[in-house]
Amino acid sequence: MELLGVHARVDAAGNLCGFYPGTERKAPRLLIGSHLDTVPNAGAYDGVLGVVLALALLEELRGRRLAFGIEVLGFSEEEGVRFGIPFIGSRALVGRLDRELLDAQDAQGISVRKAIQNFGLNPEEIPQAELESDALGYIEFHIEQGPVLENLNQPLAAVEAIAGQSRLEFIFCGRANHAGTTPMHLRRDALAGAAEWISAVEQAARGVHGLVATVGKIGVKLGATNVIAGEARLTLDVRHRSDDIRLRAVEDLIGKAREIVARRRLSVTETTLLDQRAVAMDSVLVEEIERAICKTGCKPHRMTSGAGHDAMIVAEKIPAAMIFLRSPGGISHDPAESIAVEDVEKAIECGLHLLDQLAASPEFQKRINRA
Amino acid sequence: MELLGVHARVDAAGNLCGFYPGTERKAPRLLIGSHLDTVPNAGAYDGVLGVVLALALLEELRGRRLAFGIEVLGFSEEEGVRFGIPFIGSRALVGRLDRELLDAQDAQGISVRKAIQNFGLNPEEIPQAELESDALGYIEFHIEQGPVLENLNQPLAAVEAIAGQSRLEFIFCGRANHAGTTPMHLRRDALAGAAEWISAVEQAARGVHGLVATVGKIGVKLGATNVIAGEARLTLDVRHRSDDIRLRAVEDLIGKAREIVARRRLSVTETTLLDQRAVAMDSVLVEEIERAICKTGCKPHRMTSGAGHDAMIVAEKIPAAMIFLRSPGGISHDPAESIAVEDVEKAIECGLHLLDQLAASPEFQKRINRA
Repeated sequence: MELLGVHARVDAAGNLCGFYPGTERKAPRLLIGSHLDTVPNAGAYDGVLGVVLALALLEELRGRRLAFGIEVLGFSEEEGVRFGIPFIGSRALVGRLDRELLDAQDAQGISVRKAIQNFGLNPEEIPQAELESDALGYIEFHIEQGPVLENLNQPLAAVEAIAGQSRLEFIFCGRANHAGTTPMHLRRDALAGAAEWISAVEQAARGVHGLVATVGKIGVKLGATNVIAGEARLTLDVRHRSDDIRLRAVEDLIGKAREIVARRRLSVTETTLLDQRAVAMDSVLVEEIERAICKTGCKPHRMTSGAGHDAMIVAEKIPAAMIFLRSPGGISHDPAESIAVEDVEKAIECGLHLLDQLAASPEFQKRINRA
Repeated sequence: MELLGVHARVDAAGNLCGFYPGTERKAPRLLIGSHLDTVPNAGAYDGVLGVVLALALLEELRGRRLAFGIEVLGFSEEEGVRFGIPFIGSRALVGRLDRELLDAQDAQGISVRKAIQNFGLNPEEIPQAELESDALGYIEFHIEQGPVLENLNQPLAAVEAIAGQSRLEFIFCGRANHAGTTPMHLRRDALAGAAEWISAVEQAARGVHGLVATVGKIGVKLGATNVIAGEARLTLDVRHRSDDIRLRAVEDLIGKAREIVARRRLSVTETTLLDQRAVAMDSVLVEEIERAICKTGCKPHRMTSGAGHDAMIVAEKIPAAMIFLRSPGGISHDPAESIAVEDVEKAIECGLHLLDQLAASPEFQKRINRA
């Protein structure tokens, strides 16, 4: 940042911030960034590519000033690996780093508060990290972490929504019995019932555009080759950009489970582990991103992010939108995570068009004047 | 045994033996027995009921002598819990306690040989436990350990065969991916493929009389709520009294797995863990058992044992057959294992009829004369 003549600082929540002023010193600021952390045994691009791309845009501006300043953001903790709580960095910007969150502990019993202190910061100053009224909006570049763009043969997409998520645990109960001595028609096989339901989950999601539903985890009791399963415990993860569609799908799948267990003389209970609403991205920003993608000679593609991102948190307070870069093989959170240099070039080109468009946009000018 | 005036001894393999002579001191012997061990956390009837029933028959004979002697047998080790090798007691009778088996070790590193020594016996004398030419046949009373007789509302059945068993492990491989960012049509979900196959296993077994097929164990990788399973590892247990039908079913299910993985862009490998042939019980004994069941006023029912029993081992050398007693709830290997007193009475009545029938049977007389 300093090489670019950008003033760099670390805010009270550990976020790295670099301010590049606009034509006027007090011009409001557009935030561009992503997160600096990733998961263990990860790749090189998740999060940090978005921060580096923001810096690349400043570099490409070559000192040119715009109607707004640009704040580069590198969020300190997005994945939630250490404390089990994601988005710690971006939560600070929207005033959601509360006492309860600061008291959360890692596996060694160190609290978020203590970790911030150990890093040399003062948790009492966290409110100072909150967004001020001069924050115009937030743009986040991020690898897609999925196979959609690769499949479309496109390098970039405008993210118009971040999907809502439901996570549930289902327990199918039947009766453990001897696999040799129990005829098929007298069985109450919890795993056979669960398998039928897993197929129904897949079928249901395939039938609704944009819906994804996954059983990713399963365990059976007794879990022996020669014993019919008396219990099967499995998880369901359902996501869609429409909360109505997602919640209806979950209801339908609970109903399907009940129908299966009734027919098979089993029982089922389900527990909701997570019910997170979808977050829409700002329509003005999304449209401008689409236009900017067009200008790079690529087809604009709008998509929903199936994963959560800092943009989802920042969107609570200011207009936010994301630009996805194609992920080869859809691979992420893995050392094999990669990105094509040409796609990064397109992203920089797109970002520069976007900055110019926003500076010229009457709608954005209104926001600048209001700020 | 001594209360009944029966000479009791322990053979070199730890089997408890009690001889009740026939009319002539040197008359050949009919063996009646079962095993004395069971599994941990088991019930009170598996195995030992068959030994106690043999003694009850001697008691009911009240000193009456038959054309053959009766040897009561309590086998020392049938389940295979300690050494992972079942039927140790009955293997001794058929000369199959070989060096390799004697070298097998328990979890503490104690070999079968050492355990026999620790019990106060001499492993060198094991060949002395082998059946001699005066052994006419073997009868085993045993709880059914399944729900068939309860469902038929009958107390007793004649076992005409012990099912052959195939055990295999299947590994379905797909690609682990993010549950939120991977659209349904771009997934290679190993668990979804495995679930479809589990349903096919159940379907296949339901379509063939007497066939049972079970997936009792399943594990997935990564095994996380928000990650599509890249691998699913599961077991298959298939049993039928006909080896042809069993082996064809296994082939069909392997073919079905290949069809599923081809359609879903997955792969599958399978490993055979066990391929044990079916064992027919002696037809003369089975017919006599059926007649004896009739005489108790019950309907004779012939069935296949889905579980292995000592009778299966002893049948390698001499005619053998089994009588099943109804298992309430089909429950076995569980503290809830139970048996109705009335069913035990019927079993004793049936056993006494059987002894008299065999003593009077021309076919059996031939065997006595040959012995």
